[in-house]
Amino acid sequence: MIKKARLFTPGPTALHPDVQLALGRPIVHHRTDEFRALLKECSAGLKEFFRTQDDVLVLASSGTGGMEAAVVNLLSPGDKMLALVAGNFGERWEKIGKSYGMNVTSLTAQWGEAVSPAEVAAALDRDPEIKAVFCQLSESSTGACHDVKALAEITRNRPKTLLVVDAISGAGAMQLETAEWGIDVVVVGSQKALALPPGLAFISVSQRAWERVDASTAPRFYFDLKRERKSQAGGETGFTPAISHIVALKASLDFIAGLGGVAKLVENAGLLAGMTRAAAHALRLPLVAPKAYGDALTALYPPQGIESGAIVKGLKADYMSTVAGGQGALKGKIFRIAHLGYYDVTDILGLIGTLEVVLKRLGYSFELGQGVAAAQGELLRRTGARG
Amino acid sequence: MIKKARLFTPGPTALHPDVQLALGRPIVHHRTDEFRALLKECSAGLKEFFRTQDDVLVLASSGTGGMEAAVVNLLSPGDKMLALVAGNFGERWEKIGKSYGMNVTSLTAQWGEAVSPAEVAAALDRDPEIKAVFCQLSESSTGACHDVKALAEITRNRPKTLLVVDAISGAGAMQLETAEWGIDVVVVGSQKALALPPGLAFISVSQRAWERVDASTAPRFYFDLKRERKSQAGGETGFTPAISHIVALKASLDFIAGLGGVAKLVENAGLLAGMTRAAAHALRLPLVAPKAYGDALTALYPPQGIESGAIVKGLKADYMSTVAGGQGALKGKIFRIAHLGYYDVTDILGLIGTLEVVLKRLGYSFELGQGVAAAQGELLRRTGARG
Repeated sequence: MIKKARLFTPGPTALHPDVQLALGRPIVHHRTDEFRALLKECSAGLKEFFRTQDDVLVLASSGTGGMEAAVVNLLSPGDKMLALVAGNFGERWEKIGKSYGMNVTSLTAQWGEAVSPAEVAAALDRDPEIKAVFCQLSESSTGACHDVKALAEITRNRPKTLLVVDAISGAGAMQLETAEWGIDVVVVGSQKALALPPGLAFISVSQRAWERVDASTAPRFYFDLKRERKSQAGGETGFTPAISHIVALKASLDFIAGLGGVAKLVENAGLLAGMTRAAAHALRLPLVAPKAYGDALTALYPPQGIESGAIVKGLKADYMSTVAGGQGALKGKIFRIAHLGYYDVTDILGLIGTLEVVLKRLGYSFELGQGVAAAQGELLRRTGARG
Repeated sequence: MIKKARLFTPGPTALHPDVQLALGRPIVHHRTDEFRALLKECSAGLKEFFRTQDDVLVLASSGTGGMEAAVVNLLSPGDKMLALVAGNFGERWEKIGKSYGMNVTSLTAQWGEAVSPAEVAAALDRDPEIKAVFCQLSESSTGACHDVKALAEITRNRPKTLLVVDAISGAGAMQLETAEWGIDVVVVGSQKALALPPGLAFISVSQRAWERVDASTAPRFYFDLKRERKSQAGGETGFTPAISHIVALKASLDFIAGLGGVAKLVENAGLLAGMTRAAAHALRLPLVAPKAYGDALTALYPPQGIESGAIVKGLKADYMSTVAGGQGALKGKIFRIAHLGYYDVTDILGLIGTLEVVLKRLGYSFELGQGVAAAQGELLRRTGARG
């Protein structure tokens, strides 16, 4: 049987074909007018993607490098930081902070839930010396999301407290209005909604965050944002850029512009997520984050008596579709289906169709086609008379 | 909404990714040892694909060029030829024959049916001077197929009568045993089960067919098979070959070998065709060829009161999936879904899922998911406990 390899993981995601073609182009040199013009075009496109006129800098690193850059450029050792921990990636903020000697306080949500803005406001009221709040837009380990808009309403009127958002897997899949909402720093990765391979991180820095960078004494070299700001204003990066990725980034930004902008990309993920939740409901597969789900991915518990690992393995072995298992505390307990990036209705109907067959093979009792039918119904409900 | 372009047409079909990469390689020269070795490897792989040790020659042309090559190399003007006409492509044999002054007799089936071997035997008994029978393995205009095995049983014991099979869209989707069944000439095109772009035709020639080539006086230059046989035995083509296509052909043949050979490719098309017929039955969409269907494609009538063109347009406009409309006498009356080539279960479940949504939007009354459920049931029935 032919089995086409398909990734339905919350990173890496499917590459856009124009990205693939761009990655295959001959290499160009980065200290040239041609490359400088390209990087400036990418910077302009990234600002549209981030919905801000703040600087958006490009780093040759994974998303975690962008998270570290946020911590080491904004804080000084001993500074108080508040981490909102709703899963595996929230814990990463704690670990980075502790690695650099920050005074880390955490607000922890049950996995599958989010930290409420009211809790954050109370914590900041108790300790006004907290220099920054760090959170995820989408917590990829559970599919939960933080109410970043409400969090920004809390921080933007507190002169001492910045808001730093890991939107690595959330940007491009859920609404994110960096400027309008007043978010100070946003981190994004290339292998998510932008449909690029891993290798680039992007970070936006607000005016008041730049003031903090001037005061920060945390040690840094590669992730020195002031150097990058100066270099990238001239179309160069401080160190050797991931050239082919940046050529491909332009192709990705052009694709998104052609689609009608990032709002359309967000709408697409929302449609696929809504179809997937409808299918999950019809198939009686519980959401991991029923009260705080986002649209970047859908995390699901398996039916009682069936191992989530058997579902992940069945989809891979039988149909070469890769969905993600659980991480950390949820390892072996859930499975996760991504919607961020370059996926369409035909993809998700095909995946739900094969998921049903895998569940049936594992002995789960339900009517074949009932998940697909619910997804089709949601599609009709959301798109009306025409697609 | 993101809409990925997908072809579900009986040619061109989806390119295999290794074919795409091969097409993108730097060009090589064709009068070199490197290319000669490549063409010889391709010839060996094509013999496995055709299931014969007969010569299989590569032509830079569409499939129709291969059909013309068969006529002009086997017959002389005024020779009697019998065309089995079950649709648009059967009519092409008549047109080519008449263009070269052959004495063309036809056996015509209702569109959607095939010419029966008994009719052919009777026609040959009536006129033993018929030099060759020309037919389609898969008649792409209706989805019907001829019983080529039974036809070969009739012709192989008649010294005067050759059997020429247009397997352009049938080979690799349905069983075809060129040597074992005793077929004299088989024509295949690149843009079908081989998952290449259009641009190459392949033609196998049996020993007794070569004897006929020596005697043929029909005019020919580009399609002179004797010249090609001599050139290609040495790894060269008579005229400039479509070099990149041949580089890609090797990638395609390697893919098929890795799958386990042409029988596995045939099994895959059979699975997808079976799933599609099950869905069609559940959705009450009549087969165009209910008594003679093949597995290369499924041709369907729309429900009463719905235009087939509206289905084709809806799938394209709403989901960017291209299925074929009707041709010739069936233009505007049917739609056709291909299974030949690089397609998998996830593809066909996604297509059936979107087809249902299109039908629902067009006002057709049925339960969403019922076609998908029937296809899933057929998948489980055919693949058993594991996929």
